[in-house]
Amino acid sequence: MSEFDLIRHLHQRINAFDQGSSSGCVVGIGDDAAVLEIPRDRQLVVSSDTLVEGVHFLKNTNAQHLGHKSLAVNLSDLASMGARPAWFFLSLTLASPDPEWLDLFASGMGKLARSLDIVLAGGDTTSGPLSITITALGLVEPGMALTRDGAGNGDLVVVSGQLGHAAYALETIVAGGTPQPEIRAALERPEPRLNLGRKLRGLATSCIDVSDGLIADLGHILKASSLGAEIEIDLLPGADALAALSEGQRRRLQAAGGDDYELCFTIPMNRQSELDRISNQCACPLTVIGKINSSGELVCTTADGTVFVPRGGGYEHFV
Amino acid sequence: MSEFDLIRHLHQRINAFDQGSSSGCVVGIGDDAAVLEIPRDRQLVVSSDTLVEGVHFLKNTNAQHLGHKSLAVNLSDLASMGARPAWFFLSLTLASPDPEWLDLFASGMGKLARSLDIVLAGGDTTSGPLSITITALGLVEPGMALTRDGAGNGDLVVVSGQLGHAAYALETIVAGGTPQPEIRAALERPEPRLNLGRKLRGLATSCIDVSDGLIADLGHILKASSLGAEIEIDLLPGADALAALSEGQRRRLQAAGGDDYELCFTIPMNRQSELDRISNQCACPLTVIGKINSSGELVCTTADGTVFVPRGGGYEHFV
Repeated sequence: MSEFDLIRHLHQRINAFDQGSSSGCVVGIGDDAAVLEIPRDRQLVVSSDTLVEGVHFLKNTNAQHLGHKSLAVNLSDLASMGARPAWFFLSLTLASPDPEWLDLFASGMGKLARSLDIVLAGGDTTSGPLSITITALGLVEPGMALTRDGAGNGDLVVVSGQLGHAAYALETIVAGGTPQPEIRAALERPEPRLNLGRKLRGLATSCIDVSDGLIADLGHILKASSLGAEIEIDLLPGADALAALSEGQRRRLQAAGGDDYELCFTIPMNRQSELDRISNQCACPLTVIGKINSSGELVCTTADGTVFVPRGGGYEHFV
Repeated sequence: MSEFDLIRHLHQRINAFDQGSSSGCVVGIGDDAAVLEIPRDRQLVVSSDTLVEGVHFLKNTNAQHLGHKSLAVNLSDLASMGARPAWFFLSLTLASPDPEWLDLFASGMGKLARSLDIVLAGGDTTSGPLSITITALGLVEPGMALTRDGAGNGDLVVVSGQLGHAAYALETIVAGGTPQPEIRAALERPEPRLNLGRKLRGLATSCIDVSDGLIADLGHILKASSLGAEIEIDLLPGADALAALSEGQRRRLQAAGGDDYELCFTIPMNRQSELDRISNQCACPLTVIGKINSSGELVCTTADGTVFVPRGGGYEHFV
């Protein structure tokens, strides 16, 4: 299969058949570059992420899950900015083009793309060690993007969904075990919190997606906002499914596990009552886990006020 | 060096210090995604390309040249669309972050970026086998992008610069030799033909950059335009520097060598007189090498009219 056949193949499997000019894609796959029509009243939001075999995913990861996840983790970055995704570009490096593998990969990616009405608008395929780089493009109303630097003193710290499940699934698989299906799904098929991100425009003062672990990612908000926070470790959502673990293991996975793709955000204290409505609208649990302060430090406490120091920070590739 | 230090390091080395909001980059490196302001009267042009060590460049390639080239080959795709580049996103996968290597890589990339007033707006760094994916974003006036599909019967086929030099340099190095400096520069430091691409808006009926070799890339124009062409092999520019080669070797490199990053385009025959002015303005040779016809085939002839069949088509990774 030539490079051109491969691109065409992916294009056909990933994009919906009925996508016309309504997608804003004036020139799509098949030219030197894509030409996109940006609505006048929108800013462009762009995120780029690479997944490398053996670093971000295990060897022999199910190709369908990999197709889903590599797109999902990029869209998670757009979700945390409050953007609506529109197009994406796929650079796929693989040792050899196995048609069966490609079909599965494209079907996982295509299902997610079509469910969100977004379009594969270009990219590149090349031979080499398996890795996937996606650049996702989204749109947001001018000045409405959620950033990391807007948290205010006294704001509540909120997190969506469950924490620690993906990391638990990975540890279980690496140890030779079989994770429970709902735990495994957190690792293999994360769902980007796009609806939630959109609802948070005008409410959240800061937002980030939890990819490197809550402690690390909340740390980015605090650093960018020049503030501190106190969170209560046993309020972190997701504990039920981790009940088989020791308290220390559970807390470590929830606080620093990574790969969660939930949103962590801050809201003014006087707007806490709005969380229930948004949680219902998005069918997504929202949990207040702590409060922003001016200390400049992130402190985790247990219910009795004891300071808890999680072992290990967030996931860093080069540490 | 952590992932975050690495991103900051690259950012500081690549971007100019005095880039403010004038760059259109509302939110840049340091958040989950970049937020960009797109001018109202422009369409967005996006190109994405991956370079893998051992596939697109030799092991131990000079890092400064690699930094330059990996950006240049992406910008070449924007040049062929007639777009003005504005921002780029870098996903860098490397085994370990050697500060000296990174400094050189960033200096090569930064010098080209600053010379063109374009901004590194985001990206990703990760550990793994060395590869570089760049997504370049540019702007073009609505409806003015140059595409592959507009060639007309009777149009002239034109190519910029010299052909075959980069492929000759690569073959020489692989054979253990030392290419002449100007030949070597074609391989290591290609200059994207951005000024030329801009001047061709409204003149060229189709355009492509010669990355896979002239025969393959002109073939893409013909296929997209549902036409054929006849080109005269000994009119291909760049023969002087290849004089030491046999006629067959020279013709093969010029017709199918690849890695040239020149523009191949078509213009209406009655506008040939405009080429001299554009060539002078861009300080770039422009050579008419043949003519579009309705045959549906690409035929190469020698000066006496003999049909010449080049061995090997364009460069395809998976053939």
